[in-house]
Amino acid sequence: TRDTYERDGAAIYQRSFAIIRSEADLARFDAVEERVAVRIIHACGMVEVAADLDFAPGAAAAAEAALKAGAPILCDATMVSRGVTRARLPAGNAVICTLDDPRVPGLAADLGTTRTAAAMELWREHLAGSIVAIGNAPTALFRLMEMLDAGAPLPAAVIGMPVGFVGAAESKDAIADDGRVPYLIVRGRKGGSAMAAAAVNALASARE
Amino acid sequence: TRDTYERDGAAIYQRSFAIIRSEADLARFDAVEERVAVRIIHACGMVEVAADLDFAPGAAAAAEAALKAGAPILCDATMVSRGVTRARLPAGNAVICTLDDPRVPGLAADLGTTRTAAAMELWREHLAGSIVAIGNAPTALFRLMEMLDAGAPLPAAVIGMPVGFVGAAESKDAIADDGRVPYLIVRGRKGGSAMAAAAVNALASARE
Repeated sequence: TRDTYERDGAAIYQRSFAIIRSEADLARFDAVEERVAVRIIHACGMVEVAADLDFAPGAAAAAEAALKAGAPILCDATMVSRGVTRARLPAGNAVICTLDDPRVPGLAADLGTTRTAAAMELWREHLAGSIVAIGNAPTALFRLMEMLDAGAPLPAAVIGMPVGFVGAAESKDAIADDGRVPYLIVRGRKGGSAMAAAAVNALASARE
Repeated sequence: TRDTYERDGAAIYQRSFAIIRSEADLARFDAVEERVAVRIIHACGMVEVAADLDFAPGAAAAAEAALKAGAPILCDATMVSRGVTRARLPAGNAVICTLDDPRVPGLAADLGTTRTAAAMELWREHLAGSIVAIGNAPTALFRLMEMLDAGAPLPAAVIGMPVGFVGAAESKDAIADDGRVPYLIVRGRKGGSAMAAAAVNALASARE
């Protein structure tokens, strides 16, 4: 394989997606959801993650429509914002990550929460009709619900894919139970920036 | 859990690492390797990935020593470079990703390979004694071996964690079989930017 490996980026994508579709159980997804599932699987190398995906009815279609209409994409981590392929965005959508804003450490101390959750305070003016993409911090999903409790405007959809051992599974269960925002989540501990960015990229364009 | 979730970032890390150490089988690793394994598991939410980790004897120690001595970190993807925590680096190490260099598309066309592999041509002056961190493209690992064949200087270690369905498993098997560069890899399809960055962060500092 050292001499014969595939060097053509487009061919690598095409063969990857063909392998995913031949191996993964995607029957329960509609067309937009299937695109999202395929790209998430592609991002993590695991066809079995299909079973952990939970998309609220209509959430994928709502997110796709919002992106076409120009919705901003609010990311909890710079790795998520870096993973969004700008050329796929249908309306030159803004990709916003406020984590490195100089006001965040002070806000986190004042609010008694993580930097990630504090950074979301700076999302408020962009939140209405947005796509919220969480690939790192469970606290971000919990914080989103607290902000909605306090009257913050509703996003069009939330991509809820924090990863890890403390709060990740619980935060995703909670946003689904809450139900106020159409959700696309990966149940359990799995998740991550690459999966969250892959979901955005799939919703942004049907191009493969 | 909505009312009682953990908001203290340091406590979240501490509890996460305790859960990982209680659940994962880490007995075969030495102290530095164990740190790398724990952070990789933390990045992906899967204790079972421990079984897929393959570290060449001495590779983790060599990488740790190289970072202390100021080795640059050469990343195949911006998501890897964004995932490296600058405050953990022991010698203000340079974190280099050449993928967005304007010369890359032309190089890729000239060389008949992916943009990622072409971007590595711009690593040459930094390669001797470096840490190479591959979290995305199998072609980067294959290309590294070709560059060594052609006389490129040896990195101190390679973190080989490309993810996916076409060439990922094969490229990692090949870099291990090749043996010229001390390697830290995840066998099989699994991998990704978060795992590669987690490995760098673990090697850069013992702080948890």
